[in-house]
Amino acid sequence: MNITFIGAGNVASHLSKALHDTGHNIRQIYSRNPDRIKHIAPELQAQFTTSFAAILPDSDIYIIAVSDDAIGSIAAQLSVKDTAIVAHTAGTVSIKTLHKFVRHGIFYPLQTFSIDNPIHWATLPFIVQGNDNATEQILYQIADNLSDHIYCLDDEQRKIIHIGAVFVNNFTNYLMTIASDILAQHQLPFDILKPLIQQTAQKVQTQTPQSAQTGPAKRKDLKTIEKQIELLKNMPIEVQNLYKEITQLIMDRHKIQS
Amino acid sequence: MNITFIGAGNVASHLSKALHDTGHNIRQIYSRNPDRIKHIAPELQAQFTTSFAAILPDSDIYIIAVSDDAIGSIAAQLSVKDTAIVAHTAGTVSIKTLHKFVRHGIFYPLQTFSIDNPIHWATLPFIVQGNDNATEQILYQIADNLSDHIYCLDDEQRKIIHIGAVFVNNFTNYLMTIASDILAQHQLPFDILKPLIQQTAQKVQTQTPQSAQTGPAKRKDLKTIEKQIELLKNMPIEVQNLYKEITQLIMDRHKIQS
Repeated sequence: MNITFIGAGNVASHLSKALHDTGHNIRQIYSRNPDRIKHIAPELQAQFTTSFAAILPDSDIYIIAVSDDAIGSIAAQLSVKDTAIVAHTAGTVSIKTLHKFVRHGIFYPLQTFSIDNPIHWATLPFIVQGNDNATEQILYQIADNLSDHIYCLDDEQRKIIHIGAVFVNNFTNYLMTIASDILAQHQLPFDILKPLIQQTAQKVQTQTPQSAQTGPAKRKDLKTIEKQIELLKNMPIEVQNLYKEITQLIMDRHKIQS
Repeated sequence: MNITFIGAGNVASHLSKALHDTGHNIRQIYSRNPDRIKHIAPELQAQFTTSFAAILPDSDIYIIAVSDDAIGSIAAQLSVKDTAIVAHTAGTVSIKTLHKFVRHGIFYPLQTFSIDNPIHWATLPFIVQGNDNATEQILYQIADNLSDHIYCLDDEQRKIIHIGAVFVNNFTNYLMTIASDILAQHQLPFDILKPLIQQTAQKVQTQTPQSAQTGPAKRKDLKTIEKQIELLKNMPIEVQNLYKEITQLIMDRHKIQS
């Protein structure tokens, strides 16, 4: 397959490299930002362009890997041959955004990408969707070259998964930021929490998060909770409130279920 | 060293095995619950007892690894020789709880233990404290047999670390439970989020959580946030509120800092 990438950020960078490594031809990579293109592995032997008008119309697949907001305007400007498939990589953008293309779909790798972290493709979940069966089948096969975990989901299902991702990635990352603040206020290194963070993620690989729950709130240890609220009194009020709210939610949940 | 364990839960189980493996003699293990004792590795060649009165008074170290609430009453009942060290393994319980013993301290492994998950001792942070330098030195050396990351901290510092642990373990685990609920409501498998959970933990091993932050709230993508709030409308009100609150906190933080 000849594949063109629109976008050269973290997703495009990792994905183009991985597709190249599984035998696809990366035909061209477009980014309006020339600095971004340097992130893309040079061994791809792809053409690079910063001119939208220079995007070649004869690729088999166009993967739009840009910010959610930009997908609509990219789609409006892009012209491809009728047999080509245009897919985007976003969790929350409707497949309808690409409806002007005869063949279109979703090619969404559910992961948080950063330039320096290696990606474990075999276990990475891909969510694919096509506007018809043949299109979906092709996107499935491309994902199948990379991963053992491919899900064919519709727009709403994918958006629900993305909300789940917001909770387990964006929100947990925010709680880690708060923890880092609390330790920093007492000149304690965040490093001390890192193994615990890894084990927390590890535990829910083999048991449900409900059953993995521990801590003062789970065991309704009001004495410890009161001491912790007292120790947090010099933190911003929103941190104190967040502590109280999540503690209460955990207590409520484990009261109901026990 | 001859070491006696008071308690036979997850911490006692893993820790007694690890100390045995590094050449210490596990003299005796006490638990009032005979079922618990079966979790303790049989190859320890330790004595087991369910009778508090049968705890032998001639060990070098007594490690109290019981629930936080029980440490005080265990300490009140326990008699040891004056040269013995009595230490507990709790994050939030003051060292003063053990003041009746001539030599006492803290031996706190900062990790979430469960029976089935292996412990990576070398990277596991230990927090140790002694009521005098010689006592602290001995507890340090025992931890040093297991781990490369030992911290000598006082009561307040340890309690602050424990609050950090509540945020990065208990609270993040609760957010994963919510994500699991959201997916279950739409018949979607929690499995799909597991690689993302692992990568979320992995990222903050090498970068700060502040810099690892991504997502709709970080980039102030109000369109996506509104769609997500709409999609959550059938979830319990507390889940909707939690989504809105953490989203707002992330937006506020990245407004101030950018």
